[in-house]
Amino acid sequence: MDWRQVETDNCSVARALAVVGEKWSLLVLRDAFNGLRRYDELRRHLGISDAVLADRLRTLVAAGVLERRSYQEPGRRSRVEYLVTAAGWDLQPVVVGLLQWGDRHLGDDAGPLVEVRHRGCGGAVEAVVRCAEDGRVLTPAETQLTPGPGLRLRPVEG
Amino acid sequence: MDWRQVETDNCSVARALAVVGEKWSLLVLRDAFNGLRRYDELRRHLGISDAVLADRLRTLVAAGVLERRSYQEPGRRSRVEYLVTAAGWDLQPVVVGLLQWGDRHLGDDAGPLVEVRHRGCGGAVEAVVRCAEDGRVLTPAETQLTPGPGLRLRPVEG
Repeated sequence: MDWRQVETDNCSVARALAVVGEKWSLLVLRDAFNGLRRYDELRRHLGISDAVLADRLRTLVAAGVLERRSYQEPGRRSRVEYLVTAAGWDLQPVVVGLLQWGDRHLGDDAGPLVEVRHRGCGGAVEAVVRCAEDGRVLTPAETQLTPGPGLRLRPVEG
Repeated sequence: MDWRQVETDNCSVARALAVVGEKWSLLVLRDAFNGLRRYDELRRHLGISDAVLADRLRTLVAAGVLERRSYQEPGRRSRVEYLVTAAGWDLQPVVVGLLQWGDRHLGDDAGPLVEVRHRGCGGAVEAVVRCAEDGRVLTPAETQLTPGPGLRLRPVEG
């Protein structure tokens, strides 16, 4: 398959990045994964503007990554919190992959901020690419791209 | 661990996103993973401006994700191509994770554009979070965040 000829209008990587391809989106999701649910908590912890946070939350809710739920504390008016949906949790390999890459290639002498561990055995958690059939963890050279049913070609210029 | 108190100046997710947290960066990397090496090929295939492509390539080279190499065709002047480094290939779980998420949640009736397969057995390739000790693929509920040596706390306002 000559990738230069592949039409990428329907590329799923590009579609995913249309939702989470801006650093604040994935940092909002990181904080939501780590238990922050309320707008004010997110804004304070991320240190971003209302405009940016409101925009990213709208995008993530519209894409089904987060869902809005009302909550009410006694004597206060009803407010909204944001919960990670099942579709949102499906992005965990992406976020753990970024964490692991940052730890490995951009870490400093102080060592990692956090470690993700398996609750069962306490082992380190890693994001990997593996074969769904035989379960083997694969290197990039052991993987290959094959045409899918949605493949369309375009002429190569020059 | 109360995530609201965690100082994230040294968060590896944020550091990774400072390099690849903009959709064109990861689309340049997608194309480089898929064999495109030359500036003109990348520009044509991505359909982006010179300014954006040049900027993203500079960032990716500075971060060690891509490396520049000179090549020369007979009778032409020397030119530069971009190769994925080992550090760049370490981002494969992130890119495959985005592909899989886009296929699963943003796919259309035509089906996926491409399928990533294990060269050995032809099985489908997936990005997963797993335990490095016992090799089990983990759901988010089976993982937990624990403090690392680089953890610093900050006061929670309000």
